[in-house]
Amino acid sequence: MSDLEPASGLYAFLTEVAEVLGQASLLTGTACAPYEIDVAQCRGKAAAVVLPRDTHAVSALMRIAVRHRIRLIAQGNRSGLVGAAVTDNSGTQVIVSLSRLRRVREIDPLNRTVIVDAGVLLSELNRQLEPHSLCFPIDVGSDPAIGGLIGANAGGSRLLKHGDVRHNLLGIEVVLAYGDGTVVQLLAPLRKNNTGLDLKQMFVGTGGAFGIITAATLELKRIDQSTQSMFVALPDHGTALEVLQAFELQFGDLLCAFEVISEAALAITLRNFPTLRHPFSQSSASCYALIEIASSMPGLHTIFAQRSEQVLEALYESGRVLDAVLGNTSSFWPLRDNLPLAIAKEGIPLSFDVAFSRSQLVAFRDQAAQWLAQEHPLLQLYDFGHFADGGCHLIVLVPHAHIAQYGIAKIVAVRSGIYKRVSENGGCFSAEHGVGPMNAAYYGKYTTPEVQHISRAMQQLMDPQAVLGRYRYT
Amino acid sequence: MSDLEPASGLYAFLTEVAEVLGQASLLTGTACAPYEIDVAQCRGKAAAVVLPRDTHAVSALMRIAVRHRIRLIAQGNRSGLVGAAVTDNSGTQVIVSLSRLRRVREIDPLNRTVIVDAGVLLSELNRQLEPHSLCFPIDVGSDPAIGGLIGANAGGSRLLKHGDVRHNLLGIEVVLAYGDGTVVQLLAPLRKNNTGLDLKQMFVGTGGAFGIITAATLELKRIDQSTQSMFVALPDHGTALEVLQAFELQFGDLLCAFEVISEAALAITLRNFPTLRHPFSQSSASCYALIEIASSMPGLHTIFAQRSEQVLEALYESGRVLDAVLGNTSSFWPLRDNLPLAIAKEGIPLSFDVAFSRSQLVAFRDQAAQWLAQEHPLLQLYDFGHFADGGCHLIVLVPHAHIAQYGIAKIVAVRSGIYKRVSENGGCFSAEHGVGPMNAAYYGKYTTPEVQHISRAMQQLMDPQAVLGRYRYT
Repeated sequence: MSDLEPASGLYAFLTEVAEVLGQASLLTGTACAPYEIDVAQCRGKAAAVVLPRDTHAVSALMRIAVRHRIRLIAQGNRSGLVGAAVTDNSGTQVIVSLSRLRRVREIDPLNRTVIVDAGVLLSELNRQLEPHSLCFPIDVGSDPAIGGLIGANAGGSRLLKHGDVRHNLLGIEVVLAYGDGTVVQLLAPLRKNNTGLDLKQMFVGTGGAFGIITAATLELKRIDQSTQSMFVALPDHGTALEVLQAFELQFGDLLCAFEVISEAALAITLRNFPTLRHPFSQSSASCYALIEIASSMPGLHTIFAQRSEQVLEALYESGRVLDAVLGNTSSFWPLRDNLPLAIAKEGIPLSFDVAFSRSQLVAFRDQAAQWLAQEHPLLQLYDFGHFADGGCHLIVLVPHAHIAQYGIAKIVAVRSGIYKRVSENGGCFSAEHGVGPMNAAYYGKYTTPEVQHISRAMQQLMDPQAVLGRYRYT
Repeated sequence: MSDLEPASGLYAFLTEVAEVLGQASLLTGTACAPYEIDVAQCRGKAAAVVLPRDTHAVSALMRIAVRHRIRLIAQGNRSGLVGAAVTDNSGTQVIVSLSRLRRVREIDPLNRTVIVDAGVLLSELNRQLEPHSLCFPIDVGSDPAIGGLIGANAGGSRLLKHGDVRHNLLGIEVVLAYGDGTVVQLLAPLRKNNTGLDLKQMFVGTGGAFGIITAATLELKRIDQSTQSMFVALPDHGTALEVLQAFELQFGDLLCAFEVISEAALAITLRNFPTLRHPFSQSSASCYALIEIASSMPGLHTIFAQRSEQVLEALYESGRVLDAVLGNTSSFWPLRDNLPLAIAKEGIPLSFDVAFSRSQLVAFRDQAAQWLAQEHPLLQLYDFGHFADGGCHLIVLVPHAHIAQYGIAKIVAVRSGIYKRVSENGGCFSAEHGVGPMNAAYYGKYTTPEVQHISRAMQQLMDPQAVLGRYRYT
């Protein structure tokens, strides 16, 4: 605080926070550094980091922030990809790390629900649920905090079967940006509750713009007891959709994941992670599908394996599958999960997390690939995605050798060109990471004016002093 | 219109509606009668019924209503239980029947989605989906219109497996109560879409209070290919929870429905529907469970039947199951679905549609039964419900013989007493029918002040002239 004017609002805010929450709950200066950068390398300069110990402390902090009009940025485990949980570079915004709110408050095995603090990490929650044969079924490559999962409405690889966070969220506790730091407790573990406006929905996917979530009630699933995974070589992306339909026909609601990875994406992963090996000794495939069948009903493994072999044989005979190997869950997911890391080793990755109707997915991918090859031949396209739910992760790589040729203007041109094709194919510019500084420009461009207008008005209503959120619906 | 003052706002409104939408879209006088009463016998006196032919006409109607400040009540198939789709008795409110908006706009079998007008009935939608082996999986006893399903966020008997309407809703088209009758189209058939505030959530479960839904995009499920139903006699409600757990352990995510019916409720159904027969020739059960296992994966019937027999035998041997019969889906549901009709034949039913954590369900039921027996010994209690999701339908019957003794004051006392016990056990006063005149008093009593405050402010924002909705969040 040494470089702050004692007369400034920030100085007064920090002094009061130290008094009310205790000096041990406040970091300033270089101590903030670990909180100022996220996994996507978005970086900002924070005025301070506050680490409240409980909901009561978050409420007290909110009261102080409203009085001094200080902008708070809620932060979980910094695993988002749009920069929504780090501050800007002004040095005037304050990070509220929920990392000390990590109590698993109540597990109810009979009701299959848990009440959990917002700062609990997904991995830690699942560790505590495992003795009850329960899990929170959102399967993402990273390890977000529960509050961040809700703020981004994460979906992940098993959305087809389990839905996104919104589908599995029964309640929240949230601190509102009102002058009195109102805490709204809506934690009742009810699967059916239609008593008017379902207020919690407003806080899902809005990244802390309407309040700071301090706890949640989650519906849990029983851990899968029968599973069958397979890795399948395919002639092209269009055929992947036919294979998806064949598997849905034969496995119905037990088809759990259907991820498609292009040959180029698999190759770069294997090149950068030498301990991983290619599932096929030789392959002329242009893409691969990682398919998982799963049920929490025990004893279905044999029928899963037999049926999988039958389906794959029929698809092989009709030329729609080039090759396939069966395995267990751990066999193939490392190929998929290490992909973003591998790509980052060879240059600067421009990430796109977009989604489509299944019916438009391939058209978009082909158009994007063709446009890039024509307009930006120095760049490389890697695509992988949740084909079954229409989700598509697209990474455009600026290889190390060409970084000098790709300044801001060109990168913006690439981004705009890709998002233009997303929009033309009926897709959305953010599938499961929300809106943050990394994609805010496209919110203004592709969100309907009415939604923008109502979002703005609701933010004005919920946060009249504008003390919340990295992204404002302006 | 003959009895209206030509100078009145209503007269001007009706004149303009007839001009703009055409006389054939406007009903007045006795022609309104069929629209003025719903399935729960809630009745009102409407100024008129408007039957717009498409979204454009709804928008035009909204413009006229805003200008003249006429209250519109959106109506589907009048199958709700809280009176939210009929007018009050003032003769000043106007019903907007969506019954002519009944196009199934677009079925996409590959994406498993449909875009459908709000007036399409659930049965009609499923009829058109069947050739594609698809269905909209909300299973309710009645036949609501899609708009009504969304307005009530219906859940039904298979919520355990498929979730409620909100879980299966991908998009809406809605006419806002703005002066220009703005139509917001958010119909993109995307499973992942997190580009800020998910505006459609505001219209789910709020019964037309924030806008009039004219179309929706729904996610579809493949029709079940393997099923096993059974009817199980149980010693008491507490044991039903143990049996539920045993079935979840053995069938996991394939347990689709677990309905519990008390002996009294079964008896009154059989008494009033002589064509139905008791599944057991003799029974000392105090309640029964209707259990259904289902998957859209074909070929699991044998393993379902074998496993069911094993589970039931083990439960029989430990005394938790008194008797059981296996059957197909159509064997047992008529016993469950005819129950409300049967009860209505013997007096005036007071219906409660409430929900709890599974862990509190039995405690509530026992307390409610005990209180009724003590305080209101002339009344009869019938309970049945979706045990697996915590939903509980409770019907308190005022038998024909005692109707004279039960005036308004006593009926209000019964309602208040039941809802008090709902609240004390952490339950909610409306599980899947929303808020309407039938339960509005309890919204004021049991909804947190913050939710009431925000709902009110949002209604002011979305409907500044107060032209929408039977229930106002006042």
